[in-house]
Amino acid sequence: MDHLSLFKEIVAKRSFLCVGLDSEIEKIPSFLLKTKDPVFEFNKRIIDSTSKYTVAYKPNIAFYECNGPSGWKSLESTLLYIKKRYPGIFVIADAKRGDIGNTSKMYARAFFERMDFDAITVAPYMGEDSVKPFLEYKDKWIILLALTSNKGADDFQYHNEDGIRLFERVLTLSRKWGSTDNIMYVVGATRAEMLKEVRKIVPEHFLLVPGVGAQGGSLKEVVKYGLNSKCGLLVNSSRGIIFADNSDSFDKVAGEKAAETQKEMELYLSERNLI
Amino acid sequence: MDHLSLFKEIVAKRSFLCVGLDSEIEKIPSFLLKTKDPVFEFNKRIIDSTSKYTVAYKPNIAFYECNGPSGWKSLESTLLYIKKRYPGIFVIADAKRGDIGNTSKMYARAFFERMDFDAITVAPYMGEDSVKPFLEYKDKWIILLALTSNKGADDFQYHNEDGIRLFERVLTLSRKWGSTDNIMYVVGATRAEMLKEVRKIVPEHFLLVPGVGAQGGSLKEVVKYGLNSKCGLLVNSSRGIIFADNSDSFDKVAGEKAAETQKEMELYLSERNLI
Repeated sequence: MDHLSLFKEIVAKRSFLCVGLDSEIEKIPSFLLKTKDPVFEFNKRIIDSTSKYTVAYKPNIAFYECNGPSGWKSLESTLLYIKKRYPGIFVIADAKRGDIGNTSKMYARAFFERMDFDAITVAPYMGEDSVKPFLEYKDKWIILLALTSNKGADDFQYHNEDGIRLFERVLTLSRKWGSTDNIMYVVGATRAEMLKEVRKIVPEHFLLVPGVGAQGGSLKEVVKYGLNSKCGLLVNSSRGIIFADNSDSFDKVAGEKAAETQKEMELYLSERNLI
Repeated sequence: MDHLSLFKEIVAKRSFLCVGLDSEIEKIPSFLLKTKDPVFEFNKRIIDSTSKYTVAYKPNIAFYECNGPSGWKSLESTLLYIKKRYPGIFVIADAKRGDIGNTSKMYARAFFERMDFDAITVAPYMGEDSVKPFLEYKDKWIILLALTSNKGADDFQYHNEDGIRLFERVLTLSRKWGSTDNIMYVVGATRAEMLKEVRKIVPEHFLLVPGVGAQGGSLKEVVKYGLNSKCGLLVNSSRGIIFADNSDSFDKVAGEKAAETQKEMELYLSERNLI
């Protein structure tokens, strides 16, 4: 899927919502624990109830990895389910991988060959050759960490050489490694005003924006500084949607939460004449 | 295991060798493919033949992850085997994880609770709160990326604010997050002369040094600039040992290669009066 196709999906659904599948087994409704694969069961019901309002899903790999081999089975089943039932939806492995070339190649194989994710989040610290193996796959994306939503972002991401902060260097260098059709960037919603700075360097790239909802970021601010002529935003919400309710109708409530966010997004898209 | 216990192991074995278990299924001797778990079978034989010369093993997680759930089983079996058979050996998950706090907590759970690794490699880009959850485990270590051995290290790790390069900032800030008993740093052997700069900031920390052998780094240079009064080095070799031979006696040859490296290390340790 290239960035124009992604924009088409956004227009069709009047939404740029990404639902984060941070499906922690301790937090899912307890009645699911008697099913064969509780995490997959949970995801399936969340996906069915939110897919109408959602252009992307983002399983957070840590929440599967901590369950060992069976966690990886839940992940693979979830991905297959989305791909089969909702083939137009973009699926992101939130894995934050990155290592020397021959190792990144193995991570790419894990997420793009063995599993059929559309994109993977990647950490930039080790530079170009740690990222390149992911970009060798046609129609697959990397989503590179630029400016994250957590407090620790201040520790290194603003390290400033002659007026160029580290996250700006990450953007400036990496945009040449691929194109707007295979590179996105992570820019946290808790730093929405920084989106203005980011947009100066990558006006046309898609940005994956976590941190709206539970982490305190504002969708309105994100849109104000981040939206471009092809939308250019995937805004993620995880806990605020998937754990909004813990009863037997958890999926219905998740669907309602996703619909609320979609409505707000529709308003912004229409204000900017994108739909 | 604290850093003094690790030093004791080094003295006992007259070695500071770490063997990297980058056990790519395509590269292991083909006759192993008919066994039930070829990667585990390979590792077991490599471990049995090298354990005398080795103070640490470092499975590279990507090479397991790319085999899906069964890859995670091979990894878990390998770890259990080392812990049971060779309980004094330090085992590192080379995973280069790192994410916001609640996600890093899940990665920590995967590698320190579900599995019993002694240490995990962590990427610093997201700062303190992405690292802290790993440090909450008693007797467990993080090994933080500082200066890596690959070409891409030049892209960001030398970003220089008022004479302080990014890798120096990583060292300076992070050494306060824990102690010499739970933080090590990755410093690549291909940049051995840079170890002098690293040692100015972290004179007493252990360093994990990859890149000797296949990647071209020199052990002599690493020792010259990196050794401290408690050795302070774990030098990793992967492909040069584990894939030195492809025949039925691959393990014997791996053992010989490990022994060669151990001999060289013994010489350096004795030159510096550490043994």
